[in-house]
Amino acid sequence: MAATDAVRTADSTPGTPPPLVADVAGLRAFLDGPYATVRDEVRAALAEHAGLLDERVDLPRDELRRRVRDLVVEIGARGQAAHGFPREFGGGGDIGASIASFETLAYGDLSVLVKSGVQFGLFGGALLQLGTRAHHERYLPDVLSGRLLGCFAMTETGHGSNVQALGTTATYDPATDEIVVRTPDDAARKDYIGGAAQDGELAVVFAQLEVGGERHGVHAVLVPLRRDGEVLPGVRVEDCGAKLGLEGVDNGRLWFDDVRVPRENLLDRFATIDPDGTYRSSIENPDRRFFTMLGTLVQGRVSVGGGAVGASKVALEIAVRYALRRRQFEAPGGEQETLLLDYGMHQRRLLPLVARAYALSAAQEEVARQLHAVFSPDTPEADERSRRALESRAAGTKALATWHASEAIQECREACGGAGYLAANRFAALKADTDVFTTFEGDNHVLLQLVAKGLLTDYSSEFEDLDQRGMVRFVASLAVETLVERSAAHQLFERIRDVLPGGRDGWDQEAGLLDPDYQLAMLRFREEHQISGVARRLKAGVDAGRPAGEVFGEVQDHVISAARSHVERLVLEAFVARVRALPAGPDRDVLTALCDLHALTTIEADRGWFLEHGRLSAPRSKAITREVSALLRRLRPVALELVEAFGIPAEVLGARDLVGP
Amino acid sequence: MAATDAVRTADSTPGTPPPLVADVAGLRAFLDGPYATVRDEVRAALAEHAGLLDERVDLPRDELRRRVRDLVVEIGARGQAAHGFPREFGGGGDIGASIASFETLAYGDLSVLVKSGVQFGLFGGALLQLGTRAHHERYLPDVLSGRLLGCFAMTETGHGSNVQALGTTATYDPATDEIVVRTPDDAARKDYIGGAAQDGELAVVFAQLEVGGERHGVHAVLVPLRRDGEVLPGVRVEDCGAKLGLEGVDNGRLWFDDVRVPRENLLDRFATIDPDGTYRSSIENPDRRFFTMLGTLVQGRVSVGGGAVGASKVALEIAVRYALRRRQFEAPGGEQETLLLDYGMHQRRLLPLVARAYALSAAQEEVARQLHAVFSPDTPEADERSRRALESRAAGTKALATWHASEAIQECREACGGAGYLAANRFAALKADTDVFTTFEGDNHVLLQLVAKGLLTDYSSEFEDLDQRGMVRFVASLAVETLVERSAAHQLFERIRDVLPGGRDGWDQEAGLLDPDYQLAMLRFREEHQISGVARRLKAGVDAGRPAGEVFGEVQDHVISAARSHVERLVLEAFVARVRALPAGPDRDVLTALCDLHALTTIEADRGWFLEHGRLSAPRSKAITREVSALLRRLRPVALELVEAFGIPAEVLGARDLVGP
Repeated sequence: MAATDAVRTADSTPGTPPPLVADVAGLRAFLDGPYATVRDEVRAALAEHAGLLDERVDLPRDELRRRVRDLVVEIGARGQAAHGFPREFGGGGDIGASIASFETLAYGDLSVLVKSGVQFGLFGGALLQLGTRAHHERYLPDVLSGRLLGCFAMTETGHGSNVQALGTTATYDPATDEIVVRTPDDAARKDYIGGAAQDGELAVVFAQLEVGGERHGVHAVLVPLRRDGEVLPGVRVEDCGAKLGLEGVDNGRLWFDDVRVPRENLLDRFATIDPDGTYRSSIENPDRRFFTMLGTLVQGRVSVGGGAVGASKVALEIAVRYALRRRQFEAPGGEQETLLLDYGMHQRRLLPLVARAYALSAAQEEVARQLHAVFSPDTPEADERSRRALESRAAGTKALATWHASEAIQECREACGGAGYLAANRFAALKADTDVFTTFEGDNHVLLQLVAKGLLTDYSSEFEDLDQRGMVRFVASLAVETLVERSAAHQLFERIRDVLPGGRDGWDQEAGLLDPDYQLAMLRFREEHQISGVARRLKAGVDAGRPAGEVFGEVQDHVISAARSHVERLVLEAFVARVRALPAGPDRDVLTALCDLHALTTIEADRGWFLEHGRLSAPRSKAITREVSALLRRLRPVALELVEAFGIPAEVLGARDLVGP
Repeated sequence: MAATDAVRTADSTPGTPPPLVADVAGLRAFLDGPYATVRDEVRAALAEHAGLLDERVDLPRDELRRRVRDLVVEIGARGQAAHGFPREFGGGGDIGASIASFETLAYGDLSVLVKSGVQFGLFGGALLQLGTRAHHERYLPDVLSGRLLGCFAMTETGHGSNVQALGTTATYDPATDEIVVRTPDDAARKDYIGGAAQDGELAVVFAQLEVGGERHGVHAVLVPLRRDGEVLPGVRVEDCGAKLGLEGVDNGRLWFDDVRVPRENLLDRFATIDPDGTYRSSIENPDRRFFTMLGTLVQGRVSVGGGAVGASKVALEIAVRYALRRRQFEAPGGEQETLLLDYGMHQRRLLPLVARAYALSAAQEEVARQLHAVFSPDTPEADERSRRALESRAAGTKALATWHASEAIQECREACGGAGYLAANRFAALKADTDVFTTFEGDNHVLLQLVAKGLLTDYSSEFEDLDQRGMVRFVASLAVETLVERSAAHQLFERIRDVLPGGRDGWDQEAGLLDPDYQLAMLRFREEHQISGVARRLKAGVDAGRPAGEVFGEVQDHVISAARSHVERLVLEAFVARVRALPAGPDRDVLTALCDLHALTTIEADRGWFLEHGRLSAPRSKAITREVSALLRRLRPVALELVEAFGIPAEVLGARDLVGP
């Protein structure tokens, strides 16, 4: 045990640290970030409509859909969904505000969140990003005010993840100057399309564009679906029917039987058909063109990530409040039974998830900031590399945030026992509605592959051209060492390692466990090691003459682990940076403890890897677990304040059986 | 890398092992065990009623409840629920058959499973186990045939886990020779009671029995709830309303306002009130009496564990079949896209869960065998220690099986993408309905504490008297070394270690990774080490004069880890034993690979612990991960047969969108 005792924590003075003092307002300011006012507006609107959360429990699906649609229309009419759009079309010109608003909306009913995401984010966003001035002028004011309801028709039954291989065709007919949209077979029917079953009047349809007999890849075309509630000729609609959750969203399937639309319905920011019927694009390479188009839609993923974190906070607040009221089994020497949150195991189950919700909030704020910077009209055109880095960060944060939501909501439900199983107590809806977050707006595993691709190719401009085979060959062409050495993680790791006690050889043994530079160095070391391992494996496979696809298949789980490690590093970095920026004081002390808890539970969760790779000794690994326990005990007295700081209005929190009046 | 290469696997010859050949019938015989006929009968009945699985998607709650009740009544009328009851009351006298039947019923609608579990398992089981001949004769025939529907009214709003502290009272009134049942406050209302909201006519009510002014602890009393569908005077009923799942079960709340029932309504196997109004029990100690009563109800936990494994198989078969049909992203050098199950990551996600479903099936069979042995009327009264060991095994297996179900169903849903989110594809119901399994029939964490208590006290006869404080003191009174040395894990570990190459000092380095004795030795070492660690910590805390409850609170997560390790060892042991008993041949080869996959993924999942405790070197830990990948590749070609062997009728599997016609 002597070796264990040698582990010191640099930040903590010997003995017990002073008790933490939590100020809800300060913590809330930390979480709300620069858009507190926008968030408060949404909170007020949610409180006003909180009745839906109770009523939906027993509403038939049709009625629920109607209620949800009406609320989305009202959000539009009030101008609350227009933050991110240009001012000239009724918007607020502030993308960051738009994300903050969406994140807060997730405290309420999630069908409203998702349907509003479809209408304003996906449908409105595609019009804005892929269309040109004529489309904006004609449609945006009606879309933003909720007068024109639309769909985003990308996914097909046969293709969800590999959207480049969609089957729907859009063929230009020079005889009539029209585009003919067609569903060639059932695998190419549009599927799971929000708004398609009942409400959508106009759809952005993604289809293989063919002009003059030549295919140009996937483009977006506006196709009217309904007029005065009647489905238009040539369009066939089927309701997706009952779903696991999000029953207030009318998902449906669409078939197009040679539906003709004017040439102008092509959303033609990146490629157009001239009046004389010739295809013209500012981007030569069709793959690159497609991924550039997709890239403009990145806001959807940022929004889903934020929504997931918001929903997890509702579950966490309910479970923590319940654990602070519910007693079970007699307390030692007392009359009363013990509060659930005074059990060590219960702290272990809930508080690290609270810490992660804070960490992901900081990470979301950073990705929203970058989104704002890249997409705001008043910033100069962002360079290609920043765009790719943003897309990667958004994809990775979405994956981690949505898995976090699933995990946290599940743990919270179980931590509330049988009471958590009653629909009145919100977990039913939270679980069911968020479940699809892990696979929509990009399947999480596919998204992490996208992240890995960016890391391996260093966001090179050829990035879009690289399918899996191309990527493997690209890696094989590189010197792995160079690749790794120029990676961001490597450079940061080198810098951080050098400031730690112990230096180049002893940093991992001598630094204090509570030193954020140590925690970050650990995550950076892992990321760098895993990326170079993947690169080396890919290169070795291809150098040995094996088929690229086979090589990739075998390395795939390493690819995904490396990406996950990268995103975990970004999340911790964002949290550490925000905490470091705070002035010294009680708020900073609380958030430092929370950030330590998040960092150490992240390292602890993968301690097998760190032990395997010589970056944790057995005594140090055990010391981390002890430090986590100490942090849990330290944070226990401020648990209520930590969740109160989420700022979830009491009406919206609901679950009165669990949290009390 | 030289050290890594030094790791050899004893069982595998150098080079690639021969391809596996799977025979569905052989694998099914392995899973079905001794009760294939009983299982086939349930399969046939499920196929007949499979329509409910599709129809329930859109049925209103009332209608679904009616359908489910009718099915449960039909199950009774057909005599299909009576396997486990004595022949003289219309039963089959075969408890093992009863468990096999229930496990198979889990392939179908889970509201039917749970409602039938309430009627025949909980209600009928309590009558059988806690009642005496007069109760059996009067009620059992009607209960088993579904003519008398009942409730098991134990849980209260204020007390779910700590049922010894229930608030409902049952006071003997000598003036009228009646028992007066009363709900003193809202915390003591009976809650979440299946059958209470609509159908229950008679309830087994657990209440604090008071005779002659003296309290005797919790006893079970029969209280009529309804006659001809009308709630009886003095009984108040409230519907629990919408739930996360199991919407076909009419859970409700019950209040008793001085309801009077005859003295004979006390279920008096373990304690009775004589005609002269004196209380008499064969068990002196009230705690022990209570836990003896509870112990007779162990079948409920065995059933829930089996149901959970059954439900997980449905999800696994759907996801594996989907992964064998669905293609996404272009394959290397081919025209077609790649099958999902040919992605390494997809194999990693699904196949270890398939292996665990097999392992848990073997573990369930073992616990059912012990249940049968302990409870069958024709076996001599089992000794106290066997009963305690059975209760512990049932509790632990229930916890692991139900967590497995939640995890497997979630992973399978995600692995089926958006299509998995549609209610028609069964995951909605599977997820929602099984979710409560982790917290009902004993919260999993509380159950694992029970397991740990048994390990620490070696199932001593004082076991029932020990609350948390008592247990801590008991441990403090022991010599820890003696405790550990007499534990089953220790003795088995000693024996196994001695047969491994490398002997006492080198067994963990020299044995082959695919040697089941090595795998078992690893799990036994961990269990033993963790239990002794917990005992030492508890003892040290109490020896230092700290309050017992506080000491326990701090060690609680270690307590639960130790219990989990114990149950994981039991599960692997059961799987290994079944596989070893097979004759050499293709079936055994397949199951050996599956058992290796289960064992190595179990060790891999906790490799941090093994590395920390010097039982894995870094190279050996990495070698395990490589071996897992090799096993996945080896099992991939027989994946379909592995899930076909579950024997889920195609009509019941449903999900035709995913698995094809």
